[in-house]
Amino acid sequence: MAIQYKKVSDAVIKRLPRYFRYLAELKEANVQRISSGVLSEKMGLTASQIRQDFSCFGGFGQQGYGYNVESLHSELKKILGVDKGFNTIIIGAGNLGQAIANHSKFEKRGYFLKGIFDLDAKIIGKKINGLEIMNMDSLPDFLRKEKVDIAIITVPREVTAEVADLAASLGIKGIWNFSAMDIKVPDDVVVENVHLSDSIMVLGYRIKNN
Amino acid sequence: MAIQYKKVSDAVIKRLPRYFRYLAELKEANVQRISSGVLSEKMGLTASQIRQDFSCFGGFGQQGYGYNVESLHSELKKILGVDKGFNTIIIGAGNLGQAIANHSKFEKRGYFLKGIFDLDAKIIGKKINGLEIMNMDSLPDFLRKEKVDIAIITVPREVTAEVADLAASLGIKGIWNFSAMDIKVPDDVVVENVHLSDSIMVLGYRIKNN
Repeated sequence: MAIQYKKVSDAVIKRLPRYFRYLAELKEANVQRISSGVLSEKMGLTASQIRQDFSCFGGFGQQGYGYNVESLHSELKKILGVDKGFNTIIIGAGNLGQAIANHSKFEKRGYFLKGIFDLDAKIIGKKINGLEIMNMDSLPDFLRKEKVDIAIITVPREVTAEVADLAASLGIKGIWNFSAMDIKVPDDVVVENVHLSDSIMVLGYRIKNN
Repeated sequence: MAIQYKKVSDAVIKRLPRYFRYLAELKEANVQRISSGVLSEKMGLTASQIRQDFSCFGGFGQQGYGYNVESLHSELKKILGVDKGFNTIIIGAGNLGQAIANHSKFEKRGYFLKGIFDLDAKIIGKKINGLEIMNMDSLPDFLRKEKVDIAIITVPREVTAEVADLAASLGIKGIWNFSAMDIKVPDDVVVENVHLSDSIMVLGYRIKNN
């Protein structure tokens, strides 16, 4: 019987990869057990916050014994889907698209790049990280043959909506959106935004008001 | 006399650049006035949320008249510091650093790139977006001569802490951190993280649980 999890809030979901990162570091350092107190100090959270976060997934710890690093790491791996992995494509092979394609870390996290697409005849055929940039025209055929979960969209702002609609209509389940606009897709498609301009403007605001 | 603002929450701060983006679009489209109702629909927020957000900065609107797009845009510009602008440097001229250097949008938002630094002799001297990649050794001298507010850190994870410490010790006021680790700097330095791996893992979690 599957465990029934409590409804998990956005704030908790956003902390999960951080827990995963810290646990991976502890595992690498051969730490076997860690208390919520020590983990909280490392992460800048309160111990009760951590216990509360983990309680969303059924706990993981025994009162007074702390967490087993190895098993907590592997639980988080399953919760985040890193164990099974996700197939991705990049649409838009400009500077940012190429930088993401070359980012080997994603593969370690279970995100496998299967194809790169662009409209620009000058770069179609060029190889990035072992993959040839393909013509956008071949995207529908490609997605009919390959099981792809995620479209990483790094196209100019003006064509983002169109590309997102196309990806959604071709059965993509999630969009990682790097363009400086919010996109609208059906409810069965999940969108995660990396609005770089927003992020640097938040930094600027904080500098101004620090 | 300066207006005394209410304490502004993180959630409000994070929405400010989005308001700014939407207002810029409206301004481009020659819209002169907009109600919080219409703005809320466009942005997927409630009208009362928007009024509450703006009340942190003294309001901006007259009951029943909506907001003047031009003046709200220019208010947000001041609040975000876009009017005066910020000088930046990039430390780490790998794929991601180069992609950011080539991203012309930041300049439009008031973020001016003044220098790019790296350790790798093979790329030092190469020009990116009109700027020569400089040797890390010249960073202290450079920062003594130029007024730089923000260090954009796109170095490998292993050297991130060291580079952040160096930047902080040289008078940098804000760090835009792209490495997959959390950095610790003195309170007078602000850090804004773009944890790309965390972001894609949140997307994966949401796909799995949608």
